[in-house]
Amino acid sequence: MSDSNSSAKPWAGRFNAPTDAFVEAFTASVDFDRRLYRYDIQGSIAHATMLARQGILTEAERDAIVAGLERVRARIDAGEFEWSIPLEDVHMNIESALTADIGDAGKKLHTGRSRNDQVATDVRLWLRDEIDTIRAEILRLQTALLDLAEREADTILPGFTHLQVAQPITFGHHMLAWFEMLERDRERLADCRRRMNVLPLGAAALAGTTYPIDRHYTAERLGFDRPAENSLDAVSDRDFAIEFTADAAILMMHLSRFSEELILWSSAQFGFVELSDSFCTGSSIMPQKKNPDVPELVRGKSGRIFGHLMGLLTLMKSQPLAYNKDNQEDKEPLFDTVDNLKGSLKVYADMMAHVSCNRERMRAAAKQGFSTATDLADYLVRRGIPFRDAHEIVGKAVALGVREGRDLAELTLDELRQFSDAITDDVFAVLTLEGSVAARDHIGGTAPAQVRAAIVRGRQRLAESAQGA
Amino acid sequence: MSDSNSSAKPWAGRFNAPTDAFVEAFTASVDFDRRLYRYDIQGSIAHATMLARQGILTEAERDAIVAGLERVRARIDAGEFEWSIPLEDVHMNIESALTADIGDAGKKLHTGRSRNDQVATDVRLWLRDEIDTIRAEILRLQTALLDLAEREADTILPGFTHLQVAQPITFGHHMLAWFEMLERDRERLADCRRRMNVLPLGAAALAGTTYPIDRHYTAERLGFDRPAENSLDAVSDRDFAIEFTADAAILMMHLSRFSEELILWSSAQFGFVELSDSFCTGSSIMPQKKNPDVPELVRGKSGRIFGHLMGLLTLMKSQPLAYNKDNQEDKEPLFDTVDNLKGSLKVYADMMAHVSCNRERMRAAAKQGFSTATDLADYLVRRGIPFRDAHEIVGKAVALGVREGRDLAELTLDELRQFSDAITDDVFAVLTLEGSVAARDHIGGTAPAQVRAAIVRGRQRLAESAQGA
Amino acid sequence: MSDSNSSAKPWAGRFNAPTDAFVEAFTASVDFDRRLYRYDIQGSIAHATMLARQGILTEAERDAIVAGLERVRARIDAGEFEWSIPLEDVHMNIESALTADIGDAGKKLHTGRSRNDQVATDVRLWLRDEIDTIRAEILRLQTALLDLAEREADTILPGFTHLQVAQPITFGHHMLAWFEMLERDRERLADCRRRMNVLPLGAAALAGTTYPIDRHYTAERLGFDRPAENSLDAVSDRDFAIEFTADAAILMMHLSRFSEELILWSSAQFGFVELSDSFCTGSSIMPQKKNPDVPELVRGKSGRIFGHLMGLLTLMKSQPLAYNKDNQEDKEPLFDTVDNLKGSLKVYADMMAHVSCNRERMRAAAKQGFSTATDLADYLVRRGIPFRDAHEIVGKAVALGVREGRDLAELTLDELRQFSDAITDDVFAVLTLEGSVAARDHIGGTAPAQVRAAIVRGRQRLAESAQGA
Amino acid sequence: MSDSNSSAKPWAGRFNAPTDAFVEAFTASVDFDRRLYRYDIQGSIAHATMLARQGILTEAERDAIVAGLERVRARIDAGEFEWSIPLEDVHMNIESALTADIGDAGKKLHTGRSRNDQVATDVRLWLRDEIDTIRAEILRLQTALLDLAEREADTILPGFTHLQVAQPITFGHHMLAWFEMLERDRERLADCRRRMNVLPLGAAALAGTTYPIDRHYTAERLGFDRPAENSLDAVSDRDFAIEFTADAAILMMHLSRFSEELILWSSAQFGFVELSDSFCTGSSIMPQKKNPDVPELVRGKSGRIFGHLMGLLTLMKSQPLAYNKDNQEDKEPLFDTVDNLKGSLKVYADMMAHVSCNRERMRAAAKQGFSTATDLADYLVRRGIPFRDAHEIVGKAVALGVREGRDLAELTLDELRQFSDAITDDVFAVLTLEGSVAARDHIGGTAPAQVRAAIVRGRQRLAESAQGA
Repeated sequence: MSDSNSSAKPWAGRFNAPTDAFVEAFTASVDFDRRLYRYDIQGSIAHATMLARQGILTEAERDAIVAGLERVRARIDAGEFEWSIPLEDVHMNIESALTADIGDAGKKLHTGRSRNDQVATDVRLWLRDEIDTIRAEILRLQTALLDLAEREADTILPGFTHLQVAQPITFGHHMLAWFEMLERDRERLADCRRRMNVLPLGAAALAGTTYPIDRHYTAERLGFDRPAENSLDAVSDRDFAIEFTADAAILMMHLSRFSEELILWSSAQFGFVELSDSFCTGSSIMPQKKNPDVPELVRGKSGRIFGHLMGLLTLMKSQPLAYNKDNQEDKEPLFDTVDNLKGSLKVYADMMAHVSCNRERMRAAAKQGFSTATDLADYLVRRGIPFRDAHEIVGKAVALGVREGRDLAELTLDELRQFSDAITDDVFAVLTLEGSVAARDHIGGTAPAQVRAAIVRGRQRLAESAQGA
Repeated sequence: MSDSNSSAKPWAGRFNAPTDAFVEAFTASVDFDRRLYRYDIQGSIAHATMLARQGILTEAERDAIVAGLERVRARIDAGEFEWSIPLEDVHMNIESALTADIGDAGKKLHTGRSRNDQVATDVRLWLRDEIDTIRAEILRLQTALLDLAEREADTILPGFTHLQVAQPITFGHHMLAWFEMLERDRERLADCRRRMNVLPLGAAALAGTTYPIDRHYTAERLGFDRPAENSLDAVSDRDFAIEFTADAAILMMHLSRFSEELILWSSAQFGFVELSDSFCTGSSIMPQKKNPDVPELVRGKSGRIFGHLMGLLTLMKSQPLAYNKDNQEDKEPLFDTVDNLKGSLKVYADMMAHVSCNRERMRAAAKQGFSTATDLADYLVRRGIPFRDAHEIVGKAVALGVREGRDLAELTLDELRQFSDAITDDVFAVLTLEGSVAARDHIGGTAPAQVRAAIVRGRQRLAESAQGA
Repeated sequence: MSDSNSSAKPWAGRFNAPTDAFVEAFTASVDFDRRLYRYDIQGSIAHATMLARQGILTEAERDAIVAGLERVRARIDAGEFEWSIPLEDVHMNIESALTADIGDAGKKLHTGRSRNDQVATDVRLWLRDEIDTIRAEILRLQTALLDLAEREADTILPGFTHLQVAQPITFGHHMLAWFEMLERDRERLADCRRRMNVLPLGAAALAGTTYPIDRHYTAERLGFDRPAENSLDAVSDRDFAIEFTADAAILMMHLSRFSEELILWSSAQFGFVELSDSFCTGSSIMPQKKNPDVPELVRGKSGRIFGHLMGLLTLMKSQPLAYNKDNQEDKEPLFDTVDNLKGSLKVYADMMAHVSCNRERMRAAAKQGFSTATDLADYLVRRGIPFRDAHEIVGKAVALGVREGRDLAELTLDELRQFSDAITDDVFAVLTLEGSVAARDHIGGTAPAQVRAAIVRGRQRLAESAQGA
Repeated sequence: MSDSNSSAKPWAGRFNAPTDAFVEAFTASVDFDRRLYRYDIQGSIAHATMLARQGILTEAERDAIVAGLERVRARIDAGEFEWSIPLEDVHMNIESALTADIGDAGKKLHTGRSRNDQVATDVRLWLRDEIDTIRAEILRLQTALLDLAEREADTILPGFTHLQVAQPITFGHHMLAWFEMLERDRERLADCRRRMNVLPLGAAALAGTTYPIDRHYTAERLGFDRPAENSLDAVSDRDFAIEFTADAAILMMHLSRFSEELILWSSAQFGFVELSDSFCTGSSIMPQKKNPDVPELVRGKSGRIFGHLMGLLTLMKSQPLAYNKDNQEDKEPLFDTVDNLKGSLKVYADMMAHVSCNRERMRAAAKQGFSTATDLADYLVRRGIPFRDAHEIVGKAVALGVREGRDLAELTLDELRQFSDAITDDVFAVLTLEGSVAARDHIGGTAPAQVRAAIVRGRQRLAESAQGA
């Protein structure tokens, strides 16, 4: 691939045999960690600036380094940089190019640091940005859900438990359940961001450095809240990667649940919603198909992210301190998690803005399945019958309805009264779908009025959060 | 097994065939969810009190219910309660006993709620208590680590990377790395507790209830921060269980790393520490053995907790809203996670208070392995040699040492100067272990002074946290 | 707890401090490994018999040991055995009881073995039996599926891809898909059983023993195919537990898919099947519900087993040879896997024997959704139109049907011919459901004739397998 | 991105809105599934040949298709093929190129099949080849282990349990433990290969096809043992991917254990082995380091593969039959598993051929730690003392040795006799390392004679297997 002059390696002095070519490729990380280049350069500039401020570099050296790094960045941005496997990783590729450009000053950049604290810093800088992007995408999806909830605040569909029709609910209310799940996701990521936002640089290989560095200054320049408290921990810690991936796994689990429902609702049997053609594909053999590919694919991607979480936990299990080469394996699952999470959120935010509701199908489904049976039980309780007895009475009325093929509202008063003479003709008001949903009129309930109030609160939360974090 | 009068079931009205006996046992949860009984009763008392306050129950009914529930609790506390499989779960067992005791008023307790919001409330109440206990155990272990760090602030051992001797560090510094890992764990659990501390009750089956309930009041009485915002979400959400288990998995990963190091350090080859006999066992066949059983077992338990996390994520993957029977499977992994986490923390806190350090073995190990090579490189840099060149010079000196079987400090000045004439006879000061660690004198560094300062900060953090959460 | 005379421990000679009580309970395994007692005794009897045969024990000693062990077994069978935590595990509990009964001869039983090879032997003996039971349960479920397939060989339902109606299939054919999945499961378990059926005994602690043992004899007596080839491996290997759990995870994944379909098919929207009341439960709040609890619970249990697999893999990751205390953690996940797998298979075998098919609902669903569109495409291909062109023609006809709300068979010949004049009036024969399924008449196809032939082959495979393994 | 003429899509007829560009890229698989191109073409050629044989294609059409496909393959081989995202996947890219080349005959290739059975066939063909390669790499590593075992059949090192010195073993014996683990891996992969070697083609979308195909012929041509028995299962089944990944996970777990030991043994504290420089790297900051990068990286890669296994299991959990878009997510984890498994095996096979043993360090370590204590116990048993009593006697002797800092062989006869007068001066013979290992002289034991015999058997097994599978 390139002229592997192994003496170019930073540690060649001690070794007798050249690195085997396959081993070199097998252990190199530059194929994937080059993605970090902007953050590596950002960190190096901050480091060089601090070194100069402390008198460890001269101002001229600092200026040469900063200018040289910016030239390297421009070359990479422009796709004109040649990455070298023998140089192992993004760090050595950049430093080597810098030294080739500016000479000896380049060799001084690594003073007072090690690749161990350098890579830990790079990954945190990168992930911090990605979390900000991801949180913005969540917010965009939440906004789409609020809009949809508002549009369908009065739309009635059956609420299910055990995939059996349970009680009528409003579609807006259902969308708000999704909103809440995402709200927790967004919070969790904010907690993760806060916890990871400490500076590893200065930990050097593991014990700190003998140079009079100023870690508070570097932290501030890079937007970190503070320097990491312990150098061993700083280079060994991959908690932030695992915590982020755990948050991502929960988020993807949520999207898998949304997907399951969209797929169900898009089936001919449910027919509750229609996804825009743009989010579906057809079949190479069955011309009539319109497949909800996007929800299916996102549902499938949950497995991938769960797997990355397990991979990272396993990776760190039983590792003695401080850095071990195992840790190089932290990046690919983390990168893939970020990519798939962002992609899944983006398509979801786009897709949810174009969901059509088939209000008639939903309403028809809610009318079947004895969905107002609980309302009848509550009605009986209000007439003084203990809840458990009321439950049994309704159970018998439902059994009759099942035998007769009629819903509760379709039974006659006489038929209903054979189970309890507490039933009078005002019972039919509580057996309507609108009556049922409107009656659940407390915070968290499915009544359209509550849904509208919750949407207002939801918009406020998003607005505050957009200002804050 | 017991006289399964299936008409005792709360939902018997609608059914024709009795539940199969094996199915009954297979689907019952009372064998494990009975553990929640105190929280179930606590929640029911708050619920009944709210119902009476809203005029849904009379005060007499409330009093009968509260007194009856307290009698049930006393019977369970005393081990005099007979749990019934046909009654399925802890909720129906308790309600059934209540009704047997106080009559019809007992049947009214379930007004305005469902088992779906009831169990979600119980588990949150229980887990909130357990998190408090776990955080206290972490704090106890952290205290033991600070004590040990203080005792061994000046003790020098080799720091390792790749399990190769890297640089001298202080034992206190190493213990503080563990302290930091636990500090993040404790914070994560506080975040989890805050996020889960919302009240599901009032969500009823999934849509809310038609009764004029006051969820803010119930929330306040049970110490929740607020009612859950959405009823569908409230009964479907198991995020808190997964987030807790993810936090537990990271914590157990940390303990697996501590364990790995203790096991290594207890081996004849390292011989750095000795665990108290109380935390070791012997062999049935090899009389000379003293096995570090506790660290090994804790290391092994990491797998169990990772597995529970995977299990819970899989459980929730693709579940449509709202409640499904699958969710019953959330409890056993959660219970087992709590038990093993508490047990592991407890033995660790006890064990770390009785670790003996073999300072001579540690010091001897640090003297080998060229652990001050970086110090020599830094020395050269301070004499104006670029870091990368200094690194190469030291590499050659080390290669000589390896060939000769001598450490750097054992090479002569002439031998050293053959690699660089920047070396003068003051070099030997930086090659001592004490000089090496003392020179890393910045925040996060391994210098004893820094370790002592970090201990002071650590004690402050624990004190503040003990007052706060 | 019990009179913990710690000098009763087999390794007390070397130790100074007593084991801490909490540590003792934390590290003891007798609470769960006592389940192995029959296999522990079976293994000990074989070991003692071999020792006597080799002259290492006298015949009198052997007779005393065998009789004593049988008495211990009888006491445990009868529930009259007191298990002791201080004695740590099932092995020491039994040996201690034996020695209390027969005196010094009991102390000789452990000659030439260690707990390391003993527990490895016990678990293999136990798991071998459990695999046989599990394979028999699979076979019972497969038989139920064949019976159901036979009963519904001609029943037509829509086949789905992407949960969109794709093509008509026969219900019998669908059940045979499940049959095939289970057939692979049964095979995998047979492979696992074969691979694990080697004898660890004789490995002793890790290196073998100095006694002139005959491992071939012991292997034969215990029904093992051969002694394990390497003593280190024999005591360190937990592959069989992981392989078994992986097989179990795939099996549970299959059951989760069956469950998903049964839950869908039981919903009001599909209404394809009805489960017997015995496998469903009701709701505490919604009297009309009939919830498919058993499929839901089994679906949920897949997570648990996946988790155990992850736990066991993590457990073994990076463990140095030979035995470490971590390995004690192998048992609980393995036991729980076996229990839940057996339970899930049993309820499934029982349940599938009582599934009612709603043939009208299935047929009606198959008639919708343009399920014979592929048949139309194939019809066109037979008239010489390239497949890709035919596909496009049918796509346009379907688009017309969607707009008009009519299925393909409900379009007129003129309407159809506007897309291709290759269509003539014989087209309506291929658009019937019966014509569609009957035409897929090759091995593996959905034609009733093929289904019946596959059932015959399936019954043969089961019969052969019941005779063989 | 590219001129996405969406009418090029095979399913465009039915759709109104164009696919969103991001969605197109998000759902496309060609970026990764293009790796299958050779197998896709191989399958298509077999399919076309069968179609012609059955009279469904003319011979001229078949010849055009075969020649066209071979030209496509040549272009891809040569890197001259332009892959198109809008064409979604490898299948459509190739078919589209074929049709562009040969015209209408190309459109006929898809007759009687679907992408669902096509991709299932491609992946099986590909994985079958990869399994063969992997099994060959395992065999190469096993051969390296046998060679090393032979070279070091007499080398004595301490065997460890709990990482405490237990008993002396031979290095050859230890390498044979690794050999056995790999032997099971190789067998498991053979079982997996056998089970997956059935032909999905002919299942078409899910129900089979209406064309008079001959699946037995296609199966034979492609080297499959038989056609898949059920079309629904054939397109839905991903068991083979999961089973393979489970086998890979166990294998990587084994390599993680080997790695752990090599890392330990390479540490300064153990110093048992030295890896060749080619498999190590240095440090950017610590010039003296020689890091065992390859074992560390392989150890870390175990997590990645465990994660893929979990990902695939989650992917399939609860999927209703037949094909869903989720399944597209099966490929990347499978590809990555194969790549990392092959790479890890290759570096290991290369590395193990160049391991140097430091026999003196091993021997010295074995002499410490009372490793012959069990031999003393066995000696006492042979003098008629019950094993448990002997164990206690030796425990006391060891306790004395610990206090005095001397090994058992360094105690005097008088000192030993104070614990038992059964000890006479022949005891010192059994306390030597050579005596200890030589005495474990039964199948599976560590005696050099047994090791040599096991190597002979091992070589035979490999030779037979190389001839067979």
